[in-house]
Amino acid sequence: MVNQYMLALGQTRSCIRELFEYGIRQKAAGETVYDFSIGNPSIPAPPEVNESFVSILQNTDSLSVHGYTQAPGAMDARQAVAEELNSRYGSNLRWESIFFTCGAAPALTSVVRALAVEGAEVLAIAPYFAEYRPFVEGNGAAFVPVPADREKFQIDCAALEERVTAHTQAVIVNSPNNPSGVVYTRPTLEKLAEVLTRKSREFGHPIYIISDEPYRELVYDGAEVPFLPDLYPNTVICYSYSKSLSMPGERIGYVCVPDRAADSKLLFAAAAGAARSLGHVCAPSLQQRVVAACAASRPDLEAYDRNRVALYDALTSYGYQCVRPNGAFYLFVKAPGGDAQAFSNRAKERNLLVVPGGDFGCPDYFRASTCVSHEMLLRSLPVFKELIKEYQ
Amino acid sequence: MVNQYMLALGQTRSCIRELFEYGIRQKAAGETVYDFSIGNPSIPAPPEVNESFVSILQNTDSLSVHGYTQAPGAMDARQAVAEELNSRYGSNLRWESIFFTCGAAPALTSVVRALAVEGAEVLAIAPYFAEYRPFVEGNGAAFVPVPADREKFQIDCAALEERVTAHTQAVIVNSPNNPSGVVYTRPTLEKLAEVLTRKSREFGHPIYIISDEPYRELVYDGAEVPFLPDLYPNTVICYSYSKSLSMPGERIGYVCVPDRAADSKLLFAAAAGAARSLGHVCAPSLQQRVVAACAASRPDLEAYDRNRVALYDALTSYGYQCVRPNGAFYLFVKAPGGDAQAFSNRAKERNLLVVPGGDFGCPDYFRASTCVSHEMLLRSLPVFKELIKEYQ
Repeated sequence: MVNQYMLALGQTRSCIRELFEYGIRQKAAGETVYDFSIGNPSIPAPPEVNESFVSILQNTDSLSVHGYTQAPGAMDARQAVAEELNSRYGSNLRWESIFFTCGAAPALTSVVRALAVEGAEVLAIAPYFAEYRPFVEGNGAAFVPVPADREKFQIDCAALEERVTAHTQAVIVNSPNNPSGVVYTRPTLEKLAEVLTRKSREFGHPIYIISDEPYRELVYDGAEVPFLPDLYPNTVICYSYSKSLSMPGERIGYVCVPDRAADSKLLFAAAAGAARSLGHVCAPSLQQRVVAACAASRPDLEAYDRNRVALYDALTSYGYQCVRPNGAFYLFVKAPGGDAQAFSNRAKERNLLVVPGGDFGCPDYFRASTCVSHEMLLRSLPVFKELIKEYQ
Repeated sequence: MVNQYMLALGQTRSCIRELFEYGIRQKAAGETVYDFSIGNPSIPAPPEVNESFVSILQNTDSLSVHGYTQAPGAMDARQAVAEELNSRYGSNLRWESIFFTCGAAPALTSVVRALAVEGAEVLAIAPYFAEYRPFVEGNGAAFVPVPADREKFQIDCAALEERVTAHTQAVIVNSPNNPSGVVYTRPTLEKLAEVLTRKSREFGHPIYIISDEPYRELVYDGAEVPFLPDLYPNTVICYSYSKSLSMPGERIGYVCVPDRAADSKLLFAAAAGAARSLGHVCAPSLQQRVVAACAASRPDLEAYDRNRVALYDALTSYGYQCVRPNGAFYLFVKAPGGDAQAFSNRAKERNLLVVPGGDFGCPDYFRASTCVSHEMLLRSLPVFKELIKEYQ
């Protein structure tokens, strides 16, 4: 007597969660664990985050700070976000285009629901964040994976084009990418824009890009993250402050529907209606104020960068194959033997926890998060080295 | 090319919102406005709320306080909530039965989705909170209103029984009630339990009560709010700290599926899966800690009570008909002339803002919120008095 799809979603332990909780149990039992399973920021929030929290709490009227905001958010906070984006990208976003949500996840589900007309299809490019599937399938659209470009984990635009149909409503683009750590280059995105422009014309309706960009600020080696609305006007941005302000538990992010997107007013209204149907009332009001105060803050990425370089250099020197990531905090590594689940199981026997890539659409790769302690990472290297030897 | 249902939801201004924003514009234009439109708590959060916020921020490691919690919430916080309920009601709830959500709204949508099997129907008893309709219809079930008991705004159990079918999955019960301010009595709830027990047996499956109880602690004249799982085991609780801790913007509440509910484990898992599909990752982690620290805090209701008595006494003395409310912060008043929309429009011409009851399922009643300044309330009384004279 319960909905079987929802039950399956609730009963299926995510592989990541399962490994992470296994790690906690092992540590509690006194074991040494090398845990690369979870993407939980490992650097503290910039100091101005807590300073803002406390200052707002101490200097603002209780009814005002804790009261309902309008559903899309407090005007001041929406203005702060739009201004920060405009100053960074030279865009001319209006504050009315920003809709605060409880993180990027409900931003995505709201936009998917808004676009979920009869028969709607939403594409995601492998490797993709595993939750995209329930976010799409659970909100009235079909989930269509696009196979990965296994050379560089950019976008295989030919494979994507083959999967675009008259029912395609949107393509989810996630760059910097979880799980690959790759940043899509400007030429890649220009090619994507060209394909989608052509296909939109062919089918007589806009195909939107849903740009899920919680890792936007986490880039290394001077990598550029192009502002997608500049390359493809029919882009909707979904953002979260989870990574950039190291506050993933605080659930604050937004949808931005720029004016230049086709039917932007209708799409914004439909996303607002979708959010309402999901149970959105407003994003946490205190967090809205904090991100408004800290919109221009940036994390100190040095710790992530050091881990990225150390793990990449070590693993490739042992013979692992991996595209050098220049964003986010992940390495996506070809599993020795070709079966990432088997490799992950074998690693687990040595208390080395890495996530097999099946749920990301690449069952022959594993993900290693680099948001870990550097010292643990260094201690894990001999285990990685031994493991690959067994396959050589 | 957008979902028309979601678009309509996003474009339909709620009548409450519209009045509220009209009031803001009028005030900005220097007008005197008597605004009884919105149910935004008008008493500040208990002092321990802000003390807890600040203390947690200042004394807890940033990664821990701002990090992801498990999807249902941090264990400590779930324990604090279960213990507080157990000490108050003598129940034996386990902490594992608590699932923190971003307020009561997504708690409700998660439970509705969990129960949304093919053809599912969910009943709501008029007068009902207007958002129940999109929460139900937008999540895979049919919304079935039960006409009000217009004598005392208790539950018309005969009318309810007539509307129970083989497809009825749940009845939403909201006591203390928005918009009537009435608390359902123990005999009323016992009768409801009797009907639902009989009907569950007749149709061979449990019919759940979804008890939406954000006003649980807002009662006057010593009114009792019975603990529904004691009267009807197949009860699921949806709660929000919005009213009890005067922090509606902070989006923290929970679903509780007690063990004694039929298929409680399956229902909890389905609600967790439904939440995941809606984009729930966790409830705001800071807020989880704050409500854990303040679970036993109670608001100082004196201001609400004073308004309730003053408005009730004045309006009834002028000839208005109204059941004396003993909970929440609303009066639900028979509209002079019988058309609440017309009455609300006429009141609006005098800058007196009250909400017509059509969206609550009672188009001949209007709602007046008593979470207002006492001084404004007193100044509004002559306007109420003049208005009814026009109908006498």
